[in-house]
Amino acid sequence: MIDNDKLADCLRRFASDRDWDQFHTPKNLASALAVESSELLEIFQWSRGQSGWRDLQTPEIRSRTEEELADILLYLIRFADMAGIDLQHSAEMKLALNEQKYPVGRFKGTDKKYNE
Amino acid sequence: MIDNDKLADCLRRFASDRDWDQFHTPKNLASALAVESSELLEIFQWSRGQSGWRDLQTPEIRSRTEEELADILLYLIRFADMAGIDLQHSAEMKLALNEQKYPVGRFKGTDKKYNE
Amino acid sequence: MIDNDKLADCLRRFASDRDWDQFHTPKNLASALAVESSELLEIFQWSRGQSGWRDLQTPEIRSRTEEELADILLYLIRFADMAGIDLQHSAEMKLALNEQKYPVGRFKGTDKKYNE
Amino acid sequence: MIDNDKLADCLRRFASDRDWDQFHTPKNLASALAVESSELLEIFQWSRGQSGWRDLQTPEIRSRTEEELADILLYLIRFADMAGIDLQHSAEMKLALNEQKYPVGRFKGTDKKYNE
Repeated sequence: MIDNDKLADCLRRFASDRDWDQFHTPKNLASALAVESSELLEIFQWSRGQSGWRDLQTPEIRSRTEEELADILLYLIRFADMAGIDLQHSAEMKLALNEQKYPVGRFKGTDKKYNE
Repeated sequence: MIDNDKLADCLRRFASDRDWDQFHTPKNLASALAVESSELLEIFQWSRGQSGWRDLQTPEIRSRTEEELADILLYLIRFADMAGIDLQHSAEMKLALNEQKYPVGRFKGTDKKYNE
Repeated sequence: MIDNDKLADCLRRFASDRDWDQFHTPKNLASALAVESSELLEIFQWSRGQSGWRDLQTPEIRSRTEEELADILLYLIRFADMAGIDLQHSAEMKLALNEQKYPVGRFKGTDKKYNE
Repeated sequence: MIDNDKLADCLRRFASDRDWDQFHTPKNLASALAVESSELLEIFQWSRGQSGWRDLQTPEIRSRTEEELADILLYLIRFADMAGIDLQHSAEMKLALNEQKYPVGRFKGTDKKYNE
């Protein structure tokens, strides 16, 4: 399995080979993330309840979804790498924060978080 | 370092402890990705040229950026895990595709990709 | 009632008074529209079925929603005005196109559009 | 010229003829706005400085832009109409708020707003 550090290396070389670092500004990479995420949303925007899972069994939808997820991961890793941010560490910190913010006792089986 | 597989495990347990799987539909997770990406874009939307890098030296902006990147990674991993999609493999495939699509000889030093 | 043409005039004067035309590029205005739309989505992203209508009866949610809708309209009018695009005419054309694309006989009472 | 009220009437009849009111929830309409706005952003995401204006002289780009702007306006009007929100009044209020928030004396000729 290729991990995020290895993907960051590949992306660094990819951009350097093409002299594209200049285009990879925070603003442009954030725009790219917004565009790719909305392309993912476009696939499922009218689905209802759990029907999106059924859609994902269609090979064409599954394949588009894989490609959008890949695009998001690549731009995300590229952003963190260019900014010198430790993505994995940031995610771990955020996860710990969420554990505190949503204690099981108060949030189990309710969607309070989602409606407050 | 905590890798994406480990993060997926943590998120699975996190959701399961709270009975939140029901809310993690493709549509909802894609919406969350769009919302978080736009929150990242909001930070840099008016920056010009390379000025975003300077902004990132401000501790408050750096910290917000880290948190948004973390949110995106966590929702992305959660989406792939729920959908049974191999995120790392998809990214590797996409990278290979991009190598073919943008041959160095034709794209080096130009932004043709970005304006065509 | 203040119509879109009048709002365009106000926005033109507002930007000119502050010498802000230079910031109102297609890219920046499109980013602003993406950011504001996602702020609207953020309000309703976890709602289920028709529950969003109930949320809109809460004064605080209603007021945030009004403000996001206003922001979107203002940036939209500003974009069209700067680009010399007739927004109302474009909308009328698009509506006519949609009438042809989704004939009542084939789409009444189904969500085929939304799942195909 | 067809004004926003008239467009709201057309959209109401359009949805009613197809029994589509059920799909036009706040969440779905907000998602649609996010998707359409990002499609607009996609057109200009890599443009630099004022180069977007030049792009807009290309008939194909101009025509795509018109269509995205139209989609945004139509979903926006539809949302306001379904929610019983007076869009024009909200925009007028927001404009007045912005006049107070960004006094000419302090913001003229600077992009402080955009970087603070």
